[in-house]
Parts: sequence; C-alpha cells; structure tokens
Amino acid sequence: MRVFLKIEYDGTNYCGWQIQPNGNTVQDEIAKAIERITGEKINLVGSGRTDAGVHALGQVAHFDTFSSIPPEKFKQALNTVLPADIKIAESKRAKEDFHARYSAKKKTYIYKLYQCDHTRPLKDRYAVRIGYDLDVEKMDEGAKYLVGEKDFRCFLASDSSVKDTVRTIYFAEVKKNGEDIEVKITGNGFLYNMVRIIAGTLVKIGEGKLAPEDMKKIIASGNRDLAGTTMPPRGLLLYDVEYD
Amino acid sequence: MRVFLKIEYDGTNYCGWQIQPNGNTVQDEIAKAIERITGEKINLVGSGRTDAGVHALGQVAHFDTFSSIPPEKFKQALNTVLPADIKIAESKRAKEDFHARYSAKKKTYIYKLYQCDHTRPLKDRYAVRIGYDLDVEKMDEGAKYLVGEKDFRCFLASDSSVKDTVRTIYFAEVKKNGEDIEVKITGNGFLYNMVRIIAGTLVKIGEGKLAPEDMKKIIASGNRDLAGTTMPPRGLLLYDVEYD
Repeated sequence: MRVFLKIEYDGTNYCGWQIQPNGNTVQDEIAKAIERITGEKINLVGSGRTDAGVHALGQVAHFDTFSSIPPEKFKQALNTVLPADIKIAESKRAKEDFHARYSAKKKTYIYKLYQCDHTRPLKDRYAVRIGYDLDVEKMDEGAKYLVGEKDFRCFLASDSSVKDTVRTIYFAEVKKNGEDIEVKITGNGFLYNMVRIIAGTLVKIGEGKLAPEDMKKIIASGNRDLAGTTMPPRGLLLYDVEYD
Repeated sequence: MRVFLKIEYDGTNYCGWQIQPNGNTVQDEIAKAIERITGEKINLVGSGRTDAGVHALGQVAHFDTFSSIPPEKFKQALNTVLPADIKIAESKRAKEDFHARYSAKKKTYIYKLYQCDHTRPLKDRYAVRIGYDLDVEKMDEGAKYLVGEKDFRCFLASDSSVKDTVRTIYFAEVKKNGEDIEVKITGNGFLYNMVRIIAGTLVKIGEGKLAPEDMKKIIASGNRDLAGTTMPPRGLLLYDVEYD
C-alpha cells in the first residue's frame, strides 16, 4: 500500500530534507519514525529537496508499506514519535502510481522578509531582516516578469550541473503587511536555489539598484552574475505542493 | 545618566529574565553586553521578571552609566554584541527618577494558543496547541469578569509568598483568528504565574468544563485549586509596559 504524507517542519536544526551520510535530515527523521512504527525499512520519496535551514508547511512524500495500520492513522502514530519540529499534517492512501516527486504539478514557495532597523528575535527564525526601505510595488512589478515558461538559468546556483533549466512560473507576487514582506512564487518546478536567488534579485529591485524591467533582461541573459545574491535559507518556506 | 531600554526576546533558551546563580538569563546577557561596551558593571533594572521560556516584545529596563555614548546609540551598539534572540528595540535617555519597575503604570501580556489536531512546528515555539474545540466567545465572556480592582489570590502560584494580591485589570479579551487564539490582558501588575493560570482557566471555560460566570466565583473564592492549570511558558508574551 502506498501512503501519502503532508509534512510541516521547522528546518532550523536540520541539514535539509534529503538523507545524507553525516547529517540529521528531515527525511531521515521521518523514515526512522516509520520504521519504529511498522518495523519496516521503507524508502521515503519526497516531492523534492529543501536545503539546510529551509522550512516547510506543505512538503509531500510517499512510501510503500505492508503494515496493517490504516493510512490515515499514520498521521497520529508518526506524530507521537516525531520530534516537535517535524510533524505530519495529513496521511492518506495514495494510488499505486502516485509519486511525490514525478506526480507533482505545482509547487509554491514563500520567501519572508521584514523591514526593521533591528533584528526581531520573535521573527528572525522564519524571516530575514532588511535594514533599509524597500519599494515593494517595484518588487512586485519585477516579479511579474518571472511568469511564463522560461529558461531560468540565471537563477541557478553556480555549483549546479543541471542541464534543463526551463521551468514554468504560474504566479509571482510581492506583498507587504506592516513591516512584513512576502514573496510568493508558484511554478511547475524550481532550480537549485532558484527562489532564494529570485528573492535576492527582488531585494535589489526594492533597493533601486535594479529596475523592475531589468528582471526581463537578467532572465534573457542567462547570467547568474547579473541576478541578486542567494538569500539565507531561514526566510524560505515550501508552502504547498499540488497534484492532480 | 539613566538609560531606558525597550527589549525584545525569544525566551526559549533562557532561564527567564532575572539573573540567577546557575542560569543564563536575559538580564545577564544584556548586563554583560553593556559591560562590554562601556566597561562598567551596571545594575540593570527590569520592569519585572519573566519566567523561563516566556517571550517579550516590550520588556523595559533601565541602568545608570557614566559612559559618553549617546543614549539613543545604545540600541545599535548593544545589538551588535547581543545574541540573535535578545535585541534592543529602543534606547533613550530616561529622567533620573524614572524606574523601570516602580514607574510602570500598565503591563500587557498576550497568551497565544492554536487549535489544531497536530503540533505545528512553525507555530509551536510561540504558542500552545489545544487539540479540541474551544468556545472562544465564552472564553471572552469569562475574561470580562477579570476587569476591575480585585484580589486575584486564586491565580497566584501556590509556592509564592507574596502578601498583597490585589491588582487592577483594565482590559481582558480573547480573540480568534483562524486557528489562532489570543488572550490579551492589561493590568497595573500581575502576580507570579497569574496570566498563565488565567489562560488555563479560560481554556477550561472554552472546553465547557467551567461556565463564563464561574470566573467571578473563582476570583471571589481566592482558591487556587478552583482555577485552571498553569499553562506552559512558551505561549506567554510580555507585550508592552506603559509609563506616564
């Protein structure tokens, strides 16, 4: 039986999603929890990796099990053994051909910033401070140039060897609420570090160092050096993964 | 010169505000930071203690210094040496007769709850989960009985030896926003654990184990055993301290 999991985590204390030889990872914690409950060593397949320190509200994963535990009961059973910073929001039976990674149609990330002249201890775990004024309308204008099927090579981490850098962005928006700024982006997939580099590019637009329409030129150039800095992981949240 | 500080902190990793022989405390961190900057061993006076694990958005403290640093510059100077979970939101010159504790007129605390069938890793650091439905209107109705000058002995931690248990509550409200519930209380002062015990009593009202008007009887009884449980510290936030 294939089981679908929707997962929330505070990534602060983890070396990201993916199991690694020398790091405690979210995938590892959940796989161990499933083993503790079912006695089975399962293969947990996530919708994709998240980097060290990145958070999730809607990560999705699947695994196959011979256990007789009803699939919707895995939520509670796993939550009793998982640490407080990783919890299952939903478990249910998945079709046998469901695949957390290959069946994913859309992913939404949110990058959180806040504008303040001092670090806010109660926000800084999940958002990144910008110490100067940002023009959020211009940032939003710049974000609109992301929408469409494009080659996003310019937003690919320079140490990545991925070949196909074409992705489709369906939605991109920058919104301000008081001192809080959210960059929300939905696409059919994202390159390594793509959202964090986009966030850095939008901050440059907000500062006035780039014009909103420069976003178009940067994408056309395919040149990583023209885009902004890779923003810190703690501002990034994997918000949702959608399937048919 | 007397300096006024407004302080924000994430109390998770501290043994509360007050300096203790064997614990790292918020007061201690700030006093050490001031010493590092001025070379002086100062006496940092807070508006009051907060317990281990309690957070603050508006703690206030004062200290006297011979330093030539302009008082409004202490904010930035201290923030460069303070840890990320304690920051100064404001520093300014205080009158020589200003006293962070004795001059305080009103304090506001917020106790944060959320209603969900699983722990939410991205909320649980600053709020406490309630796994069942709460009637928030009834909680708010119960909270209204707190308002006024009353003997709040029933909400005093049983190990406290304080004699004068009369306080004035100016405002008490319970509000719901989605799954988030906030208990907000303003008073001229609070007994040890008072807000956490009030929160526990309001949760009992929300569950239907107590009626809103039982709040009146519990206060009149002066009996700690009739009130609710002492809720965990991480849901509590010292929101504001007001002066003339």
